[in-house]
Amino acid sequence: MMTPQQYGVGARLTLSVYSDHYVEVILDALGQADSSGLEIETNDVSTYIQGDEERILNYLRDVIAAAAATKIHIGANVLLSRGCPGELACELPAGSSAIGKDALTLPATGIRARADWSIYPLLDGGHDGEHMTSIYQAIDLAKRNGTYKASHHFATLLDGDLADVLATAASGWLIVGQTVQHVVTHLTISINSPTVITD
Amino acid sequence: MMTPQQYGVGARLTLSVYSDHYVEVILDALGQADSSGLEIETNDVSTYIQGDEERILNYLRDVIAAAAATKIHIGANVLLSRGCPGELACELPAGSSAIGKDALTLPATGIRARADWSIYPLLDGGHDGEHMTSIYQAIDLAKRNGTYKASHHFATLLDGDLADVLATAASGWLIVGQTVQHVVTHLTISINSPTVITD
Repeated sequence: MMTPQQYGVGARLTLSVYSDHYVEVILDALGQADSSGLEIETNDVSTYIQGDEERILNYLRDVIAAAAATKIHIGANVLLSRGCPGELACELPAGSSAIGKDALTLPATGIRARADWSIYPLLDGGHDGEHMTSIYQAIDLAKRNGTYKASHHFATLLDGDLADVLATAASGWLIVGQTVQHVVTHLTISINSPTVITD
Repeated sequence: MMTPQQYGVGARLTLSVYSDHYVEVILDALGQADSSGLEIETNDVSTYIQGDEERILNYLRDVIAAAAATKIHIGANVLLSRGCPGELACELPAGSSAIGKDALTLPATGIRARADWSIYPLLDGGHDGEHMTSIYQAIDLAKRNGTYKASHHFATLLDGDLADVLATAASGWLIVGQTVQHVVTHLTISINSPTVITD
């Protein structure tokens, strides 16, 4: 049984705070979240988070929810990756077994989030290229749980409780991960935007 | 000869402004940029930009540079996609010819940017899965032009003039696009950050 670290399970997070007080909002949000069991490294562009999938998702939920609780307009970029440990090159050979999981859920936050969601199955030899079935399973999950809002160019628009938006993207990533070794998903989340929502 | 629209060439941009005055900074930046020849649609999460690659990149450069010229801490998420027109499903069949281009350059801005860069060759049937050669060509370009800074988990850190950072990511996308039909690249850009840069 491979550990999350050996399988390259991890996230990158960039939190954007549209306020003069962004430094304290970000530090407060990071300070309130429970990082136990996670490896966390922050630089000036993003924060790297490694560990078990559920722990990573709960951490992301807690950090983003804490920032959003200020009612300030918040953005969050989330990248989730699995199946390709290492840096420039994957240390796990392509064609290793795909290790996915079932859908996960997260406790509701009461905070509405909207997000562009993209998911990338990265086939790297030894596959037949058929991955649309698993992508449609992920989109179907979003349609069933009510977070699916629209299909746009290059991204699916999700809308719902922050917890459900994060859980939908993570679940899609885990489900596609059952058949594809290296899967990456990106979320561009917007919360408390003053822009009038038209779709 | 396929048009950029037919081939699905386009971008999504989310501009983050870490200031109470974010609305006017974003509107000013969008207002200053030349959008001629481009199709642009904005919602509350992101802006979709479609057109010729060089026009798209010059537009992104102009919008981000205008916001950064305020000296306010700015973030920008850029997604570039090619080879998969349509929304949820690609309207161009997988296995169509890959249409890439040579590297491009953009006029310098005098603004230093740092960015997480990821590139995803999305093989969809009819390929043999060998795409690391073209990815290494893209990374080599960054190393040669001096924007390569470090390899992190899930992303390469670029550092340099905003124009060179954008041009490097776009060039990698175009070069990989010479052999892979559907290629997506993501940039998470940070400018004017007060965080001490340690790598």
